Amino acid sequence: MSVTYATGFTAAGLAAGLKANGGKDVAVVCNTGPEFAAGAVFTPNRFCAAPVQWSRAAMARNAQLGTAARAVVLNSAGANACTGAAGFADTEATAQVVAEALHLPLEQVLVCSTGLIGERLKLDLLLPGAKQACAELSATAGQDAAEAIMTTDTHPKLAVAQGPGYRVGGMAKGAGMLAPWLATMLVVITTDARLTSEQAQAALSEACRTTFNRIDSDGCQSTNDTVILLASGASGVAPQMPEFTQTLRSVAADLARQLIGDAEGASHDIRIDVVNAADEDGAVAVARSIARYNLLKAAIFGNDPNWGRVLAAFGALPAETVPYDPAKVDVAINGVTVCRGGGVGEDRTRVDLSAREVSIQVDLNAGDQRATLWTNDLTHDYVHENSAYSS
Amino acid sequence: MSVTYATGFTAAGLAAGLKANGGKDVAVVCNTGPEFAAGAVFTPNRFCAAPVQWSRAAMARNAQLGTAARAVVLNSAGANACTGAAGFADTEATAQVVAEALHLPLEQVLVCSTGLIGERLKLDLLLPGAKQACAELSATAGQDAAEAIMTTDTHPKLAVAQGPGYRVGGMAKGAGMLAPWLATMLVVITTDARLTSEQAQAALSEACRTTFNRIDSDGCQSTNDTVILLASGASGVAPQMPEFTQTLRSVAADLARQLIGDAEGASHDIRIDVVNAADEDGAVAVARSIARYNLLKAAIFGNDPNWGRVLAAFGALPAETVPYDPAKVDVAINGVTVCRGGGVGEDRTRVDLSAREVSIQVDLNAGDQRATLWTNDLTHDYVHENSAYSS
Repeated sequence: MSVTYATGFTAAGLAAGLKANGGKDVAVVCNTGPEFAAGAVFTPNRFCAAPVQWSRAAMARNAQLGTAARAVVLNSAGANACTGAAGFADTEATAQVVAEALHLPLEQVLVCSTGLIGERLKLDLLLPGAKQACAELSATAGQDAAEAIMTTDTHPKLAVAQGPGYRVGGMAKGAGMLAPWLATMLVVITTDARLTSEQAQAALSEACRTTFNRIDSDGCQSTNDTVILLASGASGVAPQMPEFTQTLRSVAADLARQLIGDAEGASHDIRIDVVNAADEDGAVAVARSIARYNLLKAAIFGNDPNWGRVLAAFGALPAETVPYDPAKVDVAINGVTVCRGGGVGEDRTRVDLSAREVSIQVDLNAGDQRATLWTNDLTHDYVHENSAYSS
Repeated sequence: MSVTYATGFTAAGLAAGLKANGGKDVAVVCNTGPEFAAGAVFTPNRFCAAPVQWSRAAMARNAQLGTAARAVVLNSAGANACTGAAGFADTEATAQVVAEALHLPLEQVLVCSTGLIGERLKLDLLLPGAKQACAELSATAGQDAAEAIMTTDTHPKLAVAQGPGYRVGGMAKGAGMLAPWLATMLVVITTDARLTSEQAQAALSEACRTTFNRIDSDGCQSTNDTVILLASGASGVAPQMPEFTQTLRSVAADLARQLIGDAEGASHDIRIDVVNAADEDGAVAVARSIARYNLLKAAIFGNDPNWGRVLAAFGALPAETVPYDPAKVDVAINGVTVCRGGGVGEDRTRVDLSAREVSIQVDLNAGDQRATLWTNDLTHDYVHENSAYSS
C-alpha cells in the first residue's frame, strides 16, 4: 500500500528515537527502477527549511545532469527550519548517509523534515536511523513509512489508484499549518508508469493545483511543504498524460481530503463551492477568503449558519479582482439558500449543521467558472493544540 | 466627555428596546455649530450595510451642495447589512425621524448600525427611540451615547485631547471583526476647531491610516465600519492642519488601542513593530501577515514564544512585494532576540509572556522605514464568543 503499492519501490519506517514517545520517526522511500523519473513541488515560503533548500537544489542538479532523484529520506520530530548553515549541513549529512547506503550520487537523495521550527535535529539519532532504514527497505513497508512521518496526525494517510496497466500510490502527513501553497504537509507519491521527469513534473504540478493547493485549514503557510512524485517505469506502460494526470490527481485529492479531515482540533470539514464566477482564479480567491475568515469558522464550530460572515469575508476582496454584483449573489449552506440576491433568503433555522461535513455554496451569477476548496472550523481544540505544541 | 467634550455638540443615548438585555441601544450626536464641517471614512466591503450606503451617499450629496452632515444616529443590536432595498428604506426612515426632530435636511443626518448581519431592524422600537434621543440631547451625555453603541464591548471607549485653543473628543465601539479597512467599529469624533469639510476629511483620512487601519484583531473586515468627524468651530480657533491632524491622531490612536484592548476573548494585546524595512507599505504588510497568523496567535495565548511562526507568517509574502534577505532578519519577543540572522538567537526560555501586553519586533535590515500594528492572541474565549454570537 501507500508508496509501495506501485511496483519498483521499497520503503522503510522506524523509530530512531527522535520522537519522545518512541514512535516511528524516520522513513526512506526508494525507487528500484528499472527507470527513474521524478517531479517535486515545494513551499514558496522564503524561510523555507534546509531540507527544502536541499531538495530544490537537488532537483535542479538532476535536471542539468539528465538524471533523477531515486530516494527520499524523511523525518518527523524536527522541521530543520530557521537553523542556518549548520542546519543545512545536517540535511546534507542525512542525504549523505542514505546515498552511501544505497550507492547513489548525493543529488539523487531528497530530504523532507517536519516538526518544530528553529531547533537543530539530533543527528546522533537521525543518521543511524536513516542508515538502518536503508537496510530495512522492503516492498511491503509503505504503511511503516507513512507512520514515521506523522506529527499531530491521528492516523497515517494513504491513497492508491490504478490506471490502465499501472499503479499510483502515496502517503501524506499534515494536520495543521495547512495552507497553500501546500501546508505543513509532506507527500510522497510513487508510480510504476513510464514517465520522463518532465512528464512527472508537469503531471504533479497540475494535480497539486486543484488538490493540495485547494485545502486551507488555517491560512498558515509552512516552511517545509514538499510533494514528491517518483516513477519507476516497472509496469512497462507509458500512459497517456491526460489520463495519467487524472489518476495522479485522484490520489492527490484523496490525500488532501484526508489532511483536512484530520486537521488539528477540527469538528467540521467545510467544502466551499464557488460557482458561476467570471474566472477560475476569482472563484478560488472568493473560496479562500471564506476559508480564512475566523468569525465564520468559529460560527460553524457553534453550528451557526451565520451567512452574513460568508458575504463579509469575500466582500473584502477588491471589485477589480473579482467581478460580480453584490445584489445578485446567492449563498446556500447545506442546501438551504439562506441568502438570495445579497439579502435574506430562506429561513436560517432550516440549516442542519450537526454533521461533520458542511457545504457552503456561493453563486456569484457572474459567469460559468467554478472552484472547490476545503477548510475546517475554528475550535477550542485548534487553539489548545497550537498553544501547547512546542511545550 | 467623549463626543460632548468639544463645545458645540450635544448627544444622547438611551434604551429603545432593541437589546434583549434592556441596555442602551440608540444614540444621537448633534453638531450645534456655529459652523458645520464633516469628514467620514467607511468600510470598503462590497456588502457594506445600508447605513454605510446611506452615509456615503449623504457625504457626497453634502459635498455637492457645499453643506455638511450635522447629526449622526447610531444603533446597536442590528447591523442592517445584507437586508436589501427594504433595509435601505429602514435606514432612510431612521434618518428621516432625526431630520424632522432636528429640523435638518435629510442628507445632513448620517446613520450607523452594528450587530448581526442579515436581520431587519425593529423599526417600531428604533424610530420612537431615535425621536426620543433627539428630545434628550444634551451637552453632557457623551458617555450615554458611547454606551448605546456597545455590542460585545465590555466597556465604552472614550478619548479626548486638547490642541491650542480647541478640543477633540471621540467615542468608539468594536470588539471583534476588527480588521482594516477599519473593523466592526463605529467611531464618532467631534471637535470645536474651525475646519472646512475638506480639511476635516483630509485630517480624518490621515489619522485613520496609522491608527484604526493598524489594528487587526482577527483579519475579519466588517460590513459596517464607519468613522465620522464633525467640527463645530465653536472654539473660534482655526488650527494649523499638521498640528490638528496630530491631535486628532492622538484621539484615534487612543480609541484604536482601546478597541484592541477589549477584543473578544483576548488575553494578550500584541504590539508588532517592523523596523528597518525598505518602505512603509512593506513594513505594514509584514506586520499584518504576523497579526493574522492563527498559529502564532494561539502560541501567544499559550505563553509560547514560538518565533518560527513569526518567520513562517511573513515568509509567505512574495519576495517582489517585500524586499529583504531572510538570512539577515532578527526577531525579538519582549526584548529577547530569539532569532538572529534568520536562525536561532537567544534562548527562547528567557522570554516572559505572562503580562497582557506582548511586543514582537521584526528587524528586516533592509532599509530605514517602519510600521507598528496591534493585534491580539487567539483564545478559547474568542472561539466561544464567536461561535455563540447569533444564538
